[in-house]
Amino acid sequence: MGYLLGVDLGGTKIEVGVVSREGVLGQRLRVPTPRGQGTAAVVDHIRAAMGEVLRRAEVAWGALDGVGVGAPGPLDRQAGVILEAPNLPELNGFPLAAALAEGGVPLYLENDANAAALGEYRFGAGRGSADLVYVTVSTGIGGGIILGGRLYRGVSGTAGEVGHTVVEVEGPPCACGSRGCLETLASGTAIARQAAAALAAGRESVLAAEGLDAAAVYRAAGAGDVLAREITERAGYYLGVGISNLINLLNPERVILGGGVVQAGRDLFDPVERAVRERALKVPAAACRILPAGLGQDAGVLGAAAVVLEQAG
Amino acid sequence: MGYLLGVDLGGTKIEVGVVSREGVLGQRLRVPTPRGQGTAAVVDHIRAAMGEVLRRAEVAWGALDGVGVGAPGPLDRQAGVILEAPNLPELNGFPLAAALAEGGVPLYLENDANAAALGEYRFGAGRGSADLVYVTVSTGIGGGIILGGRLYRGVSGTAGEVGHTVVEVEGPPCACGSRGCLETLASGTAIARQAAAALAAGRESVLAAEGLDAAAVYRAAGAGDVLAREITERAGYYLGVGISNLINLLNPERVILGGGVVQAGRDLFDPVERAVRERALKVPAAACRILPAGLGQDAGVLGAAAVVLEQAG
Repeated sequence: MGYLLGVDLGGTKIEVGVVSREGVLGQRLRVPTPRGQGTAAVVDHIRAAMGEVLRRAEVAWGALDGVGVGAPGPLDRQAGVILEAPNLPELNGFPLAAALAEGGVPLYLENDANAAALGEYRFGAGRGSADLVYVTVSTGIGGGIILGGRLYRGVSGTAGEVGHTVVEVEGPPCACGSRGCLETLASGTAIARQAAAALAAGRESVLAAEGLDAAAVYRAAGAGDVLAREITERAGYYLGVGISNLINLLNPERVILGGGVVQAGRDLFDPVERAVRERALKVPAAACRILPAGLGQDAGVLGAAAVVLEQAG
Repeated sequence: MGYLLGVDLGGTKIEVGVVSREGVLGQRLRVPTPRGQGTAAVVDHIRAAMGEVLRRAEVAWGALDGVGVGAPGPLDRQAGVILEAPNLPELNGFPLAAALAEGGVPLYLENDANAAALGEYRFGAGRGSADLVYVTVSTGIGGGIILGGRLYRGVSGTAGEVGHTVVEVEGPPCACGSRGCLETLASGTAIARQAAAALAAGRESVLAAEGLDAAAVYRAAGAGDVLAREITERAGYYLGVGISNLINLLNPERVILGGGVVQAGRDLFDPVERAVRERALKVPAAACRILPAGLGQDAGVLGAAAVVLEQAG
């Protein structure tokens, strides 16, 4: 006993790792996600990766406290079913947990943003803090809420949709059907879209229209490009307004920022902090630290492993 | 044993009532708050009202499980001190709980919006629902969050500031220093301000500039006045956007609307519900009922009494 197996199931890659209860990541393996080949292929790839990692680590199935699987999209944890995976539609409604279970070892399925929140709480920038909000900014904006040292899931398991809180009532239309959601103003997609629009309008920049993404904008901002800095600054300010709403509503001890956005460094954290100074109430703002995520590349696997600790104690 | 004493301390009145553990309000008394006469006058008035209510109810101090005091503004619960009472500045920093304690009966001080949330949860529209957000819309907009059947206070006790969540990033300036807070767009003060501005701009209406307040706007809306309906509708829509943010973030089972706004009835609830349909994510929106508060005039006293149940179990 004493080992955790973390599985991070993404649209492009599957990552599996053996993790100690203290959060030390041992053997790990990354394989591409077999897309469009049916559910059996996904299940086979995950099972093979799990077996291989355990073999390399010389850990038997029986020595595992449990397996945690972080997966995108809304899911039914109790039933172990992914309800809607935009990047892996073949898994919609598929009983994944049952298909992956092995030798009586408990297996827990969890939304990936919630898993990452648990990972930061147990092993990362959230250690020692019972009330925190994890916000991940990549293509979209997701989140997970830890209250009183437990993941707060809400009545139907969808809590934490920070990206779909409105901060500009008549802002850009959002894929969710609303307008002015934080995701339309501060996500990687929003940043790339704003940069493309500015280039199309003839703005000068080192940015090239081809292959334009948020990472390119962050790099250009870091190199002093005026347009890239302006876009990063504005996205950071909006993100800070959304975080101010979290601070006023939940009075958390920490807000942890993860995802691709962390690459932008001070160019993004500075305007986030300015917005919080200008927008959040003094008492809860003073009580809250805003920190970059601590687990970096390992967030997926460590978060999935942390799900086991939360579920199995 | 078995009785609760609820004290609702407001800027204009003090209300005291004897309440059963099941939430039945027995003897009650309302006295004006002695303003500007120093702390001793406030303490004397509350103590006299408590004694008189217990005498009429023929309940001895020793038969009380505890006394709950709901008070405005941020406070230090542990120390029993009101930190900042905008309408009762003489109480700033005063150790009110110690001054009111009597005969070893436990006395609990709580923010009035939190107390009202507890009251709705225990005795009102929130009964049977472990995860709910109470939103009160009167002069300002306040709130209280119940999660897992407990009041969620946050790390410094200020959680639930629904009125200071931004829904329009460049909206009207707010007293808190931010812009576009829900309170600047949907509170009673905002409604009265919008009506006054429209009248000053020459809009036709049955509303009179003199004595204009939100209640007058609600009444005129109910009577079919076009301007009043327009203002009520817009405020309701903004309120619904704020509630959609709560739904997406917290996935609560219920959102309970209290305060003066409840007078507006369908004129306000209809646009609230329309906003939730247009703005909130489908799964959490389907799981959430939006209900008017159930305790009406008795919310203050019953909420204060409910604080005892939460604290003393």
